[in-house]
Amino acid sequence: METIDAMKWRYAAKRMSGKKIPEHKINKIIEAMHLAPSGIGLQPYELIIITNNELKNKIQPIAFNQMQIVECSHLIVFAAWDTYSNKRIDKVFDHLAKERNLPLEKTSSQRNFSKSFFGAMSEENNFHHAAKQAHIALGIATLTAALEGIDATPMEGFDPIALDALLGLKEKGLKSSMLLALGYRNDSNDWNLNLKKVRKPMSEFITEIK
Amino acid sequence: METIDAMKWRYAAKRMSGKKIPEHKINKIIEAMHLAPSGIGLQPYELIIITNNELKNKIQPIAFNQMQIVECSHLIVFAAWDTYSNKRIDKVFDHLAKERNLPLEKTSSQRNFSKSFFGAMSEENNFHHAAKQAHIALGIATLTAALEGIDATPMEGFDPIALDALLGLKEKGLKSSMLLALGYRNDSNDWNLNLKKVRKPMSEFITEIK
Repeated sequence: METIDAMKWRYAAKRMSGKKIPEHKINKIIEAMHLAPSGIGLQPYELIIITNNELKNKIQPIAFNQMQIVECSHLIVFAAWDTYSNKRIDKVFDHLAKERNLPLEKTSSQRNFSKSFFGAMSEENNFHHAAKQAHIALGIATLTAALEGIDATPMEGFDPIALDALLGLKEKGLKSSMLLALGYRNDSNDWNLNLKKVRKPMSEFITEIK
Repeated sequence: METIDAMKWRYAAKRMSGKKIPEHKINKIIEAMHLAPSGIGLQPYELIIITNNELKNKIQPIAFNQMQIVECSHLIVFAAWDTYSNKRIDKVFDHLAKERNLPLEKTSSQRNFSKSFFGAMSEENNFHHAAKQAHIALGIATLTAALEGIDATPMEGFDPIALDALLGLKEKGLKSSMLLALGYRNDSNDWNLNLKKVRKPMSEFITEIK
């Protein structure tokens, strides 16, 4: 499918069919997210990819009992860093230096900038920043999925504290920021499918300064 | 280009050639962003699309003098709502009702939910929420651009207060959250072009629960 056709085809499926996404297609969506850009390349989030039915059943009640939680093929939890610690920042730049065959000192200016930039922010704003980077990947995932004819429903309607507890995220220094249900729309019973896609008028969306 | 090839091809171009993006291609990138999903469909941000050279020259010094600001074809400023006011929320749902030929009352449950959800949040967190939605569109723009062979460099290295003042965003209830330079890489002098693209190991990026 072509980009704009894919973006028009996609919608937030509220009912899915339970059909499984083939391995090579889910891998493509994950790889696209893995390649997503992020501020200073820190990739300050992880993805928890859930296909386990028992776990999906436990998540459903803490996500307003939404049906796509259990009817999707893969449920992805975006789990963002709770804070940009120096240890985490060092780990990124140590890995970068190794992959690029650089002496560690060559990474020190970006490394020190990152530490002072995020160190000067509140912990809450560290998390907001990390979650924003995860949203870039979320956008890329929705388009990648649509291009493959796969439905992707972003959801922020869930209790993050309960979800973090269920998944043991706090112990890992992570906080859930978003859910993404990937699967196939159920044409026969999704009330959301036939509603007209509405966006604000283009004239209120963009301002051109030529 | 295929999705993964496009994601591997793309990088944050730090030098661009000044070549102009054809109208139909820039329109495709803008349309993809216009179709991007957002929380409760509120689209709480606007895009300022700058091709004016004089204005780009004024922005460059408040963005660490980055060259891609002036060498890009189109500079996009993501300008997010400073707050989710009831007036803004009403406008979205009035438009939705009109486009879907629904009586206004049919939108009242989502309308009221939005008002109480965002009303209970601090103004700062309203802005973070709005900026996160803009990041979804940013992700979609980077992939859409890459699929068209266009470079897209996201930038948060700028002084948002100075940029808001320059563009008169405060008066519109907007705050700049991100810049995106769209254009064409300058193969001959971009130090960033030949650096190996490094991402954290996939094993540290995803956790599968089967």
